[in-house]
Amino acid sequence: MWKPDRQSKKPMYEQIADHLEQRISYGEFPPGSLLPSERKLAEQLGVNRSTVILAFDELRSLGIIESRTGSGTRVSTTKWGVTPKHTPNWSRYAEGGSFLPNLPFMRRIREALTQTTSLIDLASGELSGDLAPTHEITMLMSEHQYTSYLGYDNPQGYLPLREDLVSYLEKYRGIHTTESSILITSGSQQSLFLITQCLLSPGDAVAIEDPSYCYSLPMFQSAGLRLFRLPVDEHGINPEEVRSLYKKHHIKMVFLNPNFQNPTGTVLDKERREQLLNVVSELGLPIVEDDPFSLTAYEGTPPLPLKSMDTIGSIIYIGSFSKIAASGLRVGWMVAPHSIVTRLADARQQMDFGLSVIPQQVAAQFLKSSYFAPHLDSLRMQLRFKRDQLIESLRKELPNLVQFTIPNGGLHLWCRLIPEVHDGKLLEEAIRRGVVFVPGRVYGSDSGFVRFTFARAPTDEIATGVSRFAESLLGLTKE
Amino acid sequence: MWKPDRQSKKPMYEQIADHLEQRISYGEFPPGSLLPSERKLAEQLGVNRSTVILAFDELRSLGIIESRTGSGTRVSTTKWGVTPKHTPNWSRYAEGGSFLPNLPFMRRIREALTQTTSLIDLASGELSGDLAPTHEITMLMSEHQYTSYLGYDNPQGYLPLREDLVSYLEKYRGIHTTESSILITSGSQQSLFLITQCLLSPGDAVAIEDPSYCYSLPMFQSAGLRLFRLPVDEHGINPEEVRSLYKKHHIKMVFLNPNFQNPTGTVLDKERREQLLNVVSELGLPIVEDDPFSLTAYEGTPPLPLKSMDTIGSIIYIGSFSKIAASGLRVGWMVAPHSIVTRLADARQQMDFGLSVIPQQVAAQFLKSSYFAPHLDSLRMQLRFKRDQLIESLRKELPNLVQFTIPNGGLHLWCRLIPEVHDGKLLEEAIRRGVVFVPGRVYGSDSGFVRFTFARAPTDEIATGVSRFAESLLGLTKE
Repeated sequence: MWKPDRQSKKPMYEQIADHLEQRISYGEFPPGSLLPSERKLAEQLGVNRSTVILAFDELRSLGIIESRTGSGTRVSTTKWGVTPKHTPNWSRYAEGGSFLPNLPFMRRIREALTQTTSLIDLASGELSGDLAPTHEITMLMSEHQYTSYLGYDNPQGYLPLREDLVSYLEKYRGIHTTESSILITSGSQQSLFLITQCLLSPGDAVAIEDPSYCYSLPMFQSAGLRLFRLPVDEHGINPEEVRSLYKKHHIKMVFLNPNFQNPTGTVLDKERREQLLNVVSELGLPIVEDDPFSLTAYEGTPPLPLKSMDTIGSIIYIGSFSKIAASGLRVGWMVAPHSIVTRLADARQQMDFGLSVIPQQVAAQFLKSSYFAPHLDSLRMQLRFKRDQLIESLRKELPNLVQFTIPNGGLHLWCRLIPEVHDGKLLEEAIRRGVVFVPGRVYGSDSGFVRFTFARAPTDEIATGVSRFAESLLGLTKE
Repeated sequence: MWKPDRQSKKPMYEQIADHLEQRISYGEFPPGSLLPSERKLAEQLGVNRSTVILAFDELRSLGIIESRTGSGTRVSTTKWGVTPKHTPNWSRYAEGGSFLPNLPFMRRIREALTQTTSLIDLASGELSGDLAPTHEITMLMSEHQYTSYLGYDNPQGYLPLREDLVSYLEKYRGIHTTESSILITSGSQQSLFLITQCLLSPGDAVAIEDPSYCYSLPMFQSAGLRLFRLPVDEHGINPEEVRSLYKKHHIKMVFLNPNFQNPTGTVLDKERREQLLNVVSELGLPIVEDDPFSLTAYEGTPPLPLKSMDTIGSIIYIGSFSKIAASGLRVGWMVAPHSIVTRLADARQQMDFGLSVIPQQVAAQFLKSSYFAPHLDSLRMQLRFKRDQLIESLRKELPNLVQFTIPNGGLHLWCRLIPEVHDGKLLEEAIRRGVVFVPGRVYGSDSGFVRFTFARAPTDEIATGVSRFAESLLGLTKE
C-alpha cells in the first residue's frame, strides 16, 4: 500500500495530494463520492492529521474536492465541464441489496488490523504463522507436480481429495462415509452460507447456541431466518430446549458446535448427546454440526463428533483445515445426504464456479503425508502452551477482575469481566493501546464478556497484549 | 468413482448391491430417500440396466429398499426397528431456499460430461489442457516459494497480485487504476454473483444483451431481478435501446460483454461505444462490463474495453484468467469505485472468507513472468486454428444447413440451424452419439440456435464431434 516518502524533497502533503488526485482521476473516487475522513487517511498513511488537512486544502484550491461542514469531503462534480454528465450514485448502490454488511465491531476490528500492523491480534480466530505447517506444505509443493490439468473442477470438488477425506473421517473422526457424500467447500463459512441460502427460506426458524459465533455472521439475518437461542452451560446445550423450541416455533434446523464450542470452549456432555439424538430423531429435525476444533484437543483422545453416533442420517457435518492446518488454504468439507450434496454443489457452481484445484491438491497431499499426524501433535502442544500463557497473564494483570472456564481445546478463551465497562469504549481504548479482542456481544451474549484468541498472536506477544488490555480496562473503570 | 470389478468371481450385481448397501448405511441415502434410477445407475457404473435390476432385487429381498410403481426406488424406513425414529425430510430441504437451481439443459450437460468421459465436449466454455499454460505454471511453482504465510487473506485479495494487475490493466487493457480499486474474485461468475446479490434489490430492473450467457445464470432470477433485453446485431447492442429501457422500466444497471460477446462473438462497434457512454453518463446509469475474451483476438491488436474510455466512473469492469490462462486457477478481478469494492469485499468475506493465497500467488508470478506474452500469442494462434477446424467441419458435414458469422476472437461459434428440430431431442441424440453442445435457448434466444465451443475439445476431436452432431441433426430431421 502506498505511503508518502519521508526522504523525498517534495513535502509530504504534496505527495499525498498528488496521490489522492491520481486515485480520483483513475475512478477509485468518482465525482460526488465521499473521501475517507482526515482521521482515517492519517491512520492509513501513517502521518499526522495536519498533513492530511494540508493535502485536502491543496486539492480544494484546485477545485478537485469540496468540503461541507458535517457531510465530509467529496470529489467535485463541477470540475467536469458544462456537459451534463452524471456518475452513477455508487454509494446508493453500495447501500442496496438484501445482503447485510458485517457487524460494526467486526468491521472495526478488521479495519484496525489492516491499518496498524503493530497491533497485537487476540481477535482473529486462526493459527499464527508458526503453528501452520508452512514448511511441510512448501516441501510437498516442491516434491509434487500440482498442475496436471487446470480446468474447471468437479462441482463436488477434487475427487482424490474427497477419497482421502473418506479415510481421514474414518480414522480421525469416527465417521463412515463415501466420496459421493462429500462436498468440498472453501471452508466452514461457505458451508454455512450454502446451507442458509439454499436449504432454508426467509421466515424459517432455526435454533442456535447462545452464545455462538453464528451471531457474528450476518448471513443468518441476510437469509431472513428467525433465530432462537439454546443457552450453553458448562456441559453444552440442553436437548429438552430443542424440543420446546420445536413445539413453540417449529424450528427447521439446529446449528451446533459440540466440541470446544466457539466462543465458550464447552464440550457437549456425553449423556446430552444421546438425549439430543433421540429428540431430533423423534422430531425428524436436522442438525448442522460444525466441527472445526476437535483435533486441537490438548490432551487425550479428541472428542468424536455427534455425526459419529448418527445412525439415521439426521446430521450435516462440517469440517475444515482452517483451524488445524492453515486457514489460507481455504479448504473445508461437508458430509451430507446425496440430495443435499447435489443441490449445494449446483448452487455453489452458480456462486463461484467451484474451487481452484491447486489448494485441493495441496490439502490432499498433506492429509496423506507423514507430516500430518506429527503436525497435529505439535499443534496441540503449542496451543496448550499459548492457552497457559494467556491465562497466566490474565491472572497476573487482572486478578479477581476476570472469570473464565479453562478450555481443553480450541483457539479461544471466553472471559467474563467483573468491572462494568462500555464494550465499544473498551475496544477503542484497546486499539489505541495496541491490542484487539472481540467483544462478547458479537456472539450474542450480554455486555461484559470478551473472547480472546490465543492462537493467532506470536507466543511472545501474548503477555504484552494482555497487559495492554488490562491497562485499557483499568483506565476506563477508574474514570 | 467406484465401478464393479469385472475380473472378480463375485457376480457384478452382488458387488453393486453391496456397494449400494454401504452407501445407504453410511447415510448418503438416508431412510426414505430416493435412489438414482436404474437407467442412471447403469450409466454411472458402466453396466447393463439388467445388472442394476438384479442388484435392486437383492436389496429389496433384504428389506433395505422398496419400490413403488411410478415413484421410483426408496430406502426403507421400516428397517430401523419399532422406535419411532424419523430422518429429516432431506429432499424437501433440498427443494427449499430462494436460490434457484441451474437450468435443466445445463444440469443435463454437466451430468453427461461427468458420467461419460468419452463425450466430445463442444459445450464447456473453457480452454483444453494443451491450451492452458500448464507447463509454465508448473515451472513457476517449482521455482518459487508460495507459502510464506498461510493465514486468511486481505478481504480485497492478495496485495502483490492487485499491484501486478494495475500494470497488467494499463499495459494490456488501457485501464488506469489503483490497487485499492481492485477486488480479486474467484472468477467472473463470483464478480457477477456479488454484484447481483449486493448492489441490486429484488424487483430492480436491469438490461442484458439478447442473446447473452447471462440468461444461462439463474443468479439473476434468484436475486429477483427483472431482466430486459438489448438485442445484439452484428455490431453489438443499440445504445438508444438503453435509453428507452431506462425511460420505460427505469433500469438500474446494464450488463454488457462488448468484446467477442458470449455467445455471438460480436464486437461492439466503435461509434456505438461513444454513443453508449454518452447515454449512460446522461442518465447516471452504471454499466457492468465483462471482458473475458479480448486477449484471445486472433489477429491484430485486441479491442480495448469500454472501461478504457470511461472518464467519469460509470463502469464496473470484470476480468479473469479463466479464458486466457486456466479456469482451474479460479482467479478473476473487478475494478470499481472504492465504495463498491469495500461493500463487495465485506460481503464476500461472509460468503467464503476470501480466496486461497496459493493460486493468487501463482497468478501473480505468471502475469509478470516472461511466459505470459508468448503464451498469449500461442493461444491466439491455436484458437484460430481450432475455430477454422470447426468451421471447415461444419461446412463439410452440414452444407447449407447451418449459418454463422465467423468470430475474430473468443472460444465460441454461434450457429443458426436451418432444419427445424426440437432442442431437447437434439441434445439427447447428440449425447447418445457422443458429443455435447449448448442449445441456444440457454442464452435466451429462440429455438434453432446452438453454441459450439471449439476451445475445449482437443483439436483432433473437433471433426468427429461435428460429424456426430451432424448425424444427430440429420437423423432427427429425416424422421
